[in-house]
Amino acid sequence: MTSSSTAVPFRAVDIIRKKRDQVELSPEEITAFVKGYTSGEIPDYQASAWLMAAVIRGLTRAETAALTEAMLRSGEVLDLSDFSARKVDKHSTGGVGDKTSLVLAPVAAAGGLVVPMISGRGLGHTGGTLDKLESIPGFNVNLPVTDFRRILHACGCCMIGQTAEIAPADRKLYALRDVTGTVESPYLICASIMSKKLAEGIDALVLDVKTGSGAFMKKEEDAVFLAELMVETGKRMGKKMVALITDMDQPLGRYVGNSLEVVEILEVLRGRGPDDLRDLCGELAGWMFYLGGVASSVAQGKGMAEQLIASGKALDKFRQMVELQGGDPRVVDDPSRLPRARHTLEVTAQRSGYVNAIECEAVGTACVVLGGGREKKEDSVDRAVGMILHKKVGDAVKTGESLCVIHYNSETRMQRAKDLLQKSYRIADAPPAQDRPLVHGVIGEEH
Amino acid sequence: MTSSSTAVPFRAVDIIRKKRDQVELSPEEITAFVKGYTSGEIPDYQASAWLMAAVIRGLTRAETAALTEAMLRSGEVLDLSDFSARKVDKHSTGGVGDKTSLVLAPVAAAGGLVVPMISGRGLGHTGGTLDKLESIPGFNVNLPVTDFRRILHACGCCMIGQTAEIAPADRKLYALRDVTGTVESPYLICASIMSKKLAEGIDALVLDVKTGSGAFMKKEEDAVFLAELMVETGKRMGKKMVALITDMDQPLGRYVGNSLEVVEILEVLRGRGPDDLRDLCGELAGWMFYLGGVASSVAQGKGMAEQLIASGKALDKFRQMVELQGGDPRVVDDPSRLPRARHTLEVTAQRSGYVNAIECEAVGTACVVLGGGREKKEDSVDRAVGMILHKKVGDAVKTGESLCVIHYNSETRMQRAKDLLQKSYRIADAPPAQDRPLVHGVIGEEH
Repeated sequence: MTSSSTAVPFRAVDIIRKKRDQVELSPEEITAFVKGYTSGEIPDYQASAWLMAAVIRGLTRAETAALTEAMLRSGEVLDLSDFSARKVDKHSTGGVGDKTSLVLAPVAAAGGLVVPMISGRGLGHTGGTLDKLESIPGFNVNLPVTDFRRILHACGCCMIGQTAEIAPADRKLYALRDVTGTVESPYLICASIMSKKLAEGIDALVLDVKTGSGAFMKKEEDAVFLAELMVETGKRMGKKMVALITDMDQPLGRYVGNSLEVVEILEVLRGRGPDDLRDLCGELAGWMFYLGGVASSVAQGKGMAEQLIASGKALDKFRQMVELQGGDPRVVDDPSRLPRARHTLEVTAQRSGYVNAIECEAVGTACVVLGGGREKKEDSVDRAVGMILHKKVGDAVKTGESLCVIHYNSETRMQRAKDLLQKSYRIADAPPAQDRPLVHGVIGEEH
Repeated sequence: MTSSSTAVPFRAVDIIRKKRDQVELSPEEITAFVKGYTSGEIPDYQASAWLMAAVIRGLTRAETAALTEAMLRSGEVLDLSDFSARKVDKHSTGGVGDKTSLVLAPVAAAGGLVVPMISGRGLGHTGGTLDKLESIPGFNVNLPVTDFRRILHACGCCMIGQTAEIAPADRKLYALRDVTGTVESPYLICASIMSKKLAEGIDALVLDVKTGSGAFMKKEEDAVFLAELMVETGKRMGKKMVALITDMDQPLGRYVGNSLEVVEILEVLRGRGPDDLRDLCGELAGWMFYLGGVASSVAQGKGMAEQLIASGKALDKFRQMVELQGGDPRVVDDPSRLPRARHTLEVTAQRSGYVNAIECEAVGTACVVLGGGREKKEDSVDRAVGMILHKKVGDAVKTGESLCVIHYNSETRMQRAKDLLQKSYRIADAPPAQDRPLVHGVIGEEH
């Protein structure tokens, strides 16, 4: 077929057909597609056909990098070159009880790094950093870029939500993916995460890629694949990158739910709190300091983090950030000022034995059911509800002993959550055969 | 994830995800999807994601049948049970110079069958029956169902275009497929063709599935696959079905272009015309009579067709149909009344030898370039232009001898068409090693 010449360099339908037929797209074609979609020239129905072809056929490394870059360039890229310190961020693929960002931002800033953290909200069974922060009365995560920059200058860390200026292509594509069955693709997930993170103007990025029953990537090989993809994509753009594959087969720490998780991170920032959460924060902080060039090894970076916590400097930094972002700093020393649920209920063991597994996604879903997360994007969140786990994998239990406590505001919601939690605990006669390590692997850097 | 209960039995996104993940959809799910899309409840962007998943993953036989039936039931299904004669149609997957419908409808009707033929327009490099018929002055293909029925009663055959009442789901889906790279799927092609044909209220259908350089299915195995799919789908719905795999490696007959093809079918209806076209019409008519129960074998049916042509009854039937559909019946006896191009030009051989191949799609494209077809759906068609082939595969040629004559109205268009035609003829020292048969295979019935 001949075609009449037009001003458009590529026809959307040809780009769709190529992806469908496994022909590699050029960076120019991918850029034209992303630009056309962002501007509205390419309609949703063409974008969704392309997305489905990309989900099923996959993308090459070069295509993934081109897509990430095109999405990144669809909006503003922060220029933080006026900061002399290294700009380092951490990103997690999401889990249950995963609250490390609230520890890491102040620890890293207290250690001399700049942490320009743009985070997300909870969706599905996982929690979101913004929802946790907003349980602090007055805390404002919707800051314009000028305020973001001002607070970064003042205290070295600031935690906000995605703004309209950052990667608008991702915003639009993500909303479309959500309703067209095109979320589950490592290539598209990589482009979505990396386009936003690279728009922060950072020098280095530590990725926490979760695997296990509470992660989006249940299988370790899928987590490793996504981690490699993101590390390679970041390195292609000149960033220092590392990805830790970490365990999400049971909730991280003991507190799940927005204000409850703030309570727990305040414990960690005081040098207390559960081992798994403290250890993971130490590992991630160590990597941030190492990639940020303020520690000569990860081990040294971990030591720095411990000292910054022990000296109270990390907690001070958190208090400073809360205040600068409009939050009530008294919360830091008096967590009872956080929203609290009206009722609690113990979930008890129906047999004696050892906890062999906790179905982690079910725990996250129980929190959503209580109102602590979102089934749909537009749902509002009850920041007070959640649960505190008394028993974790490996613990011995006796019949009638408390497994966890539910914090709730609605009786009917509590009933559903209780059923989910009861079923999520698997108790057997013997302890589990072997412990799952906290860090399954490290991708992208020698340490 | 839990989901709140709604009145909708299925969520579109779940149906999309299942198809993506190769989980077979139930007839209820497919019906809900087609209904939802036709009513506008399911938006284009969800339909196109599903279509892409269906193109890449394929459909099972049961899914194909369910999709066909859902599309068929999206509109009116003609009830022709008041006709005592068998209702039989023929459908071709499209080619270049493929004009058999204009012969077969009157031949079959003259032999006592009812032929309720709903045809399409040319798209891409292939011609369309409606465009050919409309080259007859006054001929109206846009008849309401009441007129269609009246003409069928009066003369046994009527040839119209798709109406708004017939398979509206196909109309809407086809328009979407055209712009989302989801045309090329045997499953979707089968559902599109069969939903429309089964809506005609027929008892039997003869399929002419083309293969070769001028067909949509260039590879014979693809043509066979589509043929089997359509035959099985029709049989599941209780129809008598056969598919002939026929050659489209060079144009059928010698005339290509709308009014030129009408000239050629009038020759065939007079017992003249080129062998390949006459033979194929005989084969297809034989099958129509056999499946229609008026001949006890295909061979006998072929004999009937020859007699109906020799006696002039088929030509009379064509004249009657033209008149009933508002066309000028004098065209039948005086083809010079058909639109004629202002200019002609001989394309001559640049070397001596034997025609080894004619790049058939290029010939079709040359006709489109002249204005005789559509590059886009909304293009208007010049019914006078086209070409007459003097040389076909196997013929000996001498340098400077005429290969074909172009009928044209625009000098610049002619130049492009001439280049295409010159290149489409491949001339070698020896005749081609072996003849391609006219009928490559028969699928679905013993004869």
